[in-house]
Amino acid sequence: MSSIEQKTVSTIRLLAVDAVSAANSGHPGAPLGLAPAAYAVWQKMKFNPQDTKWINRDRFVLSNGHACALLYSLLVLYGYDLSVEDLKQFRQLNSKTPGHPEATDVPGVEVTTGPLGQGIGNAVGLAIAQNQFAATYNKPDYKLSDSYTYVFLGDGCLMEGISSEVSSLAGHLQLGNLIAFWDDNRISIDGDTAVAFTEDVVARYKAYGWHVLEVAKGDTDLEAISQAVEDAKKVTDKPTLIRLVTTIGFGSLAQGTHGVHGAPLKADDVKQLKTKFGFNPEESFQIPSEVTQHLSESVKKNQDVQAQWNKLFASYKEKYPELGAEIQRRIDGKLPEGWEKTLPTYTTSDKPVATRKLSEIVLEKIHADLPELIGGSADLTPSNLTRTTDAVDFQAPSTGLGDYSGRYIRYGVREHGMGAIMNGIAAFGANYKNYGGTFLNFVSYAAGAVRLSALSHHPVIWVATHDSIGLGEDGPTHQPIETLAHFRATPNISVWRPADGNETSAAYKSAIESTSTPTIIALTRQNLPQLEGSSIEVASKGGYTLIKHEKPDVILVASGSEVSISVDAAKQLESQGIKAGVVSLPDFHTFDKQSLAYRLSVLPDGVPIMSFEVMSTFGWSKYSHEQFGLNRFGASGKGPEIYKFFEFTPEGVAERAAKTVQFYKGREVVSPLNTAF
Amino acid sequence: MSSIEQKTVSTIRLLAVDAVSAANSGHPGAPLGLAPAAYAVWQKMKFNPQDTKWINRDRFVLSNGHACALLYSLLVLYGYDLSVEDLKQFRQLNSKTPGHPEATDVPGVEVTTGPLGQGIGNAVGLAIAQNQFAATYNKPDYKLSDSYTYVFLGDGCLMEGISSEVSSLAGHLQLGNLIAFWDDNRISIDGDTAVAFTEDVVARYKAYGWHVLEVAKGDTDLEAISQAVEDAKKVTDKPTLIRLVTTIGFGSLAQGTHGVHGAPLKADDVKQLKTKFGFNPEESFQIPSEVTQHLSESVKKNQDVQAQWNKLFASYKEKYPELGAEIQRRIDGKLPEGWEKTLPTYTTSDKPVATRKLSEIVLEKIHADLPELIGGSADLTPSNLTRTTDAVDFQAPSTGLGDYSGRYIRYGVREHGMGAIMNGIAAFGANYKNYGGTFLNFVSYAAGAVRLSALSHHPVIWVATHDSIGLGEDGPTHQPIETLAHFRATPNISVWRPADGNETSAAYKSAIESTSTPTIIALTRQNLPQLEGSSIEVASKGGYTLIKHEKPDVILVASGSEVSISVDAAKQLESQGIKAGVVSLPDFHTFDKQSLAYRLSVLPDGVPIMSFEVMSTFGWSKYSHEQFGLNRFGASGKGPEIYKFFEFTPEGVAERAAKTVQFYKGREVVSPLNTAF
Repeated sequence: MSSIEQKTVSTIRLLAVDAVSAANSGHPGAPLGLAPAAYAVWQKMKFNPQDTKWINRDRFVLSNGHACALLYSLLVLYGYDLSVEDLKQFRQLNSKTPGHPEATDVPGVEVTTGPLGQGIGNAVGLAIAQNQFAATYNKPDYKLSDSYTYVFLGDGCLMEGISSEVSSLAGHLQLGNLIAFWDDNRISIDGDTAVAFTEDVVARYKAYGWHVLEVAKGDTDLEAISQAVEDAKKVTDKPTLIRLVTTIGFGSLAQGTHGVHGAPLKADDVKQLKTKFGFNPEESFQIPSEVTQHLSESVKKNQDVQAQWNKLFASYKEKYPELGAEIQRRIDGKLPEGWEKTLPTYTTSDKPVATRKLSEIVLEKIHADLPELIGGSADLTPSNLTRTTDAVDFQAPSTGLGDYSGRYIRYGVREHGMGAIMNGIAAFGANYKNYGGTFLNFVSYAAGAVRLSALSHHPVIWVATHDSIGLGEDGPTHQPIETLAHFRATPNISVWRPADGNETSAAYKSAIESTSTPTIIALTRQNLPQLEGSSIEVASKGGYTLIKHEKPDVILVASGSEVSISVDAAKQLESQGIKAGVVSLPDFHTFDKQSLAYRLSVLPDGVPIMSFEVMSTFGWSKYSHEQFGLNRFGASGKGPEIYKFFEFTPEGVAERAAKTVQFYKGREVVSPLNTAF
Repeated sequence: MSSIEQKTVSTIRLLAVDAVSAANSGHPGAPLGLAPAAYAVWQKMKFNPQDTKWINRDRFVLSNGHACALLYSLLVLYGYDLSVEDLKQFRQLNSKTPGHPEATDVPGVEVTTGPLGQGIGNAVGLAIAQNQFAATYNKPDYKLSDSYTYVFLGDGCLMEGISSEVSSLAGHLQLGNLIAFWDDNRISIDGDTAVAFTEDVVARYKAYGWHVLEVAKGDTDLEAISQAVEDAKKVTDKPTLIRLVTTIGFGSLAQGTHGVHGAPLKADDVKQLKTKFGFNPEESFQIPSEVTQHLSESVKKNQDVQAQWNKLFASYKEKYPELGAEIQRRIDGKLPEGWEKTLPTYTTSDKPVATRKLSEIVLEKIHADLPELIGGSADLTPSNLTRTTDAVDFQAPSTGLGDYSGRYIRYGVREHGMGAIMNGIAAFGANYKNYGGTFLNFVSYAAGAVRLSALSHHPVIWVATHDSIGLGEDGPTHQPIETLAHFRATPNISVWRPADGNETSAAYKSAIESTSTPTIIALTRQNLPQLEGSSIEVASKGGYTLIKHEKPDVILVASGSEVSISVDAAKQLESQGIKAGVVSLPDFHTFDKQSLAYRLSVLPDGVPIMSFEVMSTFGWSKYSHEQFGLNRFGASGKGPEIYKFFEFTPEGVAERAAKTVQFYKGREVVSPLNTAF
């Protein structure tokens, strides 16, 4: 290392250490070990701190998100909108430097990480998106997109199954634009990784089809790190894993031990470290001016790179005006004018259709107009009906199975990986609208990634078919009971369960137009009739009155396959002299966003309300006084027989509705929407 | 193959095909390919169809559970309590042959499978348990436990990340008693596995430290399969993966294609298959008498093996009466008399302690008396506080890190794998009570396994620390919001969130005594005071009145860290002239099992009830009229500051309670427990 390199690396290290000490909380160990690699990589990356969303920037993902003091230090030093004052507020309430990197809070943080293994999944998604974007828009004379995705990951990420899923797929897809650094520091929270993690990582990644390199002295050998990046770039048909042997807590008196992983260094230790690195032991948050100067030169060079790219893109727009306008539209995050006009609508004369099939029809209709629409399935394509007829698979061209401009991704049986990859594709920008198909029950396998979609505001779409006991013979292992409750309880997720064709179109309209909320669309395997009174417009409110009475005796509120049964129940109740209104509530999240006046017009005071959904009733008391549902696991059998067995029939619903009317007779009934605070 | 072997294999194949055809639903492809291996393995296994819980039986796990027609055919042919009539009811409502194998329904099905990757995880758990049991009780002259665990898995299982987690751990633990067959048929639902799964599985498993064998002609080469099992047994310090190259739908006109994976064979195809195999093409469910005879001989031999084992155990009991009695007690599923007497109790004079620490104290107290207590952590031992001071790690002795009699498992950062392994340990029998630690938020990574714990009645225990925003600086990526709602909505899970020491002891009492319900114990990072009025006895009802008023104006119901804040709020309210009762509700599931009379004594008619919990309010309306909680993601900062920021203080609670009183003044208030049906 040259003197300035040494000083810069030391500055990164000490800023991270000081941030953790100021907070008296955090993880100094990994930043101390990884600072050289971070510096080497960032010096090679192209990015512009003044234009953090530049589409052709290289992306950096810190999959071991607990090391975020490292990332924040880099952002400060490279001149992002993050200051030393922010670093001093590390891990404090409402600061810009939270305890794990949050993409929504901090400019320059590409994706939110911390839950282990997610970041490498996001990185694979970013690399897929870059490849797809490049294959779609690059021209022989215009290399508009040629960026790399770099990712740092720790032992913990490698132990998580999600890393296996995404790494296997990345190898299969031959993602040469992905460069991963494994921080091989042999320490995790339980101590030496020898207690639980003795696999041969290098051999494992080779088995996935990766190019694997090793840097023996990651703590100090900048040249070897730089060389490894260069070597990685030379192999264009494989992702690269660089095994970076480091010392956790490098330089600390407790280096190489678990003691430096997740707790501040002792005051004396910080002092000796600063002295050792040639810094003033009594001062904190020191940034030598020559370091600032050194890095600002690098930033300036990069800004020239972007300026050249801007010129290239301007010229591209002239030569390829249509494509150029399309790219610009996508960069601006706008959908094509009138895209929603192709969404299919239905009337009661249309035949009954499974909503999974209606979903397929939507995809067929909108696929051509939305080049940003990209999706796949976790090996359930013929069941999820997620592949449009003219789709091309996203595959390495050499396989003969598709090419990189393809918009259909064969995820394999890797739901969790798919979820994290979807987040990465969304994080790439360029207005990507990306969906993934699996059975509703197996979205739970991806719960860790779904939660991050919501937290990070990624508007990804889950095409979640086989949404209830109605799937039939596959039985309880496949029949969701708690799944909708789980995701409805999660902040910032739209969980649509459309009841017919118009509602399915409404669900997609909401999902595609969403810019910061992920969507799960729960779809039936079985056919459902087209409802009288549904439309894209009314369904877009998330809940609406399907059968209206001036003074109903009871209101039935239902979702999905239970709405038409409720309509039939209402007819039966009418013959018993009971006036039953019916409300369809396809998405709690969207309904909650409507005005209270509107919501109370749907679920008013003075009427007992009974919910009906063939799964856990948990949470339905938010909208109803009485709940009819299934608070046990399902059963294997023919779908209609299972419904009958549990009395999920018009008769069964009517019987309980009548009991509800009886129970509330003479009682004052307050709408569950009316609350004290 | 000899003639009788050929005929037996064909019988297995055709029974599976006929079952699928009769149901007009199911998966014939894998059974056709796997029948020879299944036959070869079952001929080598020791088991007794008349005593399916014999502790020293070999276990067979079908990780690709969709192939269950194969398993059911084996159970019928080997004389389990499953008949041809049951086979004819395949996938029909309330039959003993559901669409995926359910351990609770079908004798001889060791674990419930279907969700891919779980079975291999269960198998690793079974192998761990066998090793631990053997190391604990075997004596030089008494090899009481020496059984193997066999598992079949498909490409789908291998694609799921969970298989990577458990296989890496199995390699690390050197589980020589585990023999896995990879059904390498190169077909999954999306077609040729070449579209998504091109990794080198053999190299991957070698990287995990497995012994890998290959059988090139899995469809026909019985001898090679048998030899592979023998070779596997010779390597005692590594699990073995046998790559079994098969043809999906072997013999069918559509063999080798996706068409035979998940749909019945065409009628003509079934006929030609029967003719080809030398069976009557017009008959279904044929079992040649010589096949019955052939297999009954094998069963008889096995029953002799068990009879010898019974003698061995009888002799063991004489020579080692204490250990013998302990084994017998464990086989009988009984806990030691008075085990619960060591559970710690507390009074208000005891100091405030974090419930994670109180959990550690419980484990310390009960560890010695319960040899069946075994547990670990997903690399969060010092945070979860799951390791007792005198614990020995469960490790291969050669590593010098522990031995196989150890009762502490270093799971690594593998939550999903841990969940499936815990299910396998529970499924082993011998009264194993096994726990796994992680942060509450990351139990969600294991959602697929947790669901199967509940469905399969495995009484496993999650020690889920850092249970709320109270964890502080780690921030929103680590702070549970929806997690409790998710698991409370799942049938058959106890989700405890104890408020103090007595409630923590009650949670463990319930968890350890449970025989068919899994438990999640949500525990704080921060200290909580010991409550006046709590006790193991009252808390064991799942919910109870902590502060009682004859005629309260309002009842505050809370869990965990919010109970003591509610108590303080009640005091503040008293000074405002409002009488506030306080209810602690540590476990919905247990509370729901109490009589309605008891529950109404806690949450009576006539009083407005307000819940308070610092996470999603979703579902709390089941027990309350008004809800105070957090329906957004949390924040990074000091725990107490976050509580204050969201007004989760006695003042904040009192303010909302006062509003609740105001809102319900003059209104008839019905307890949410009183329902119409």
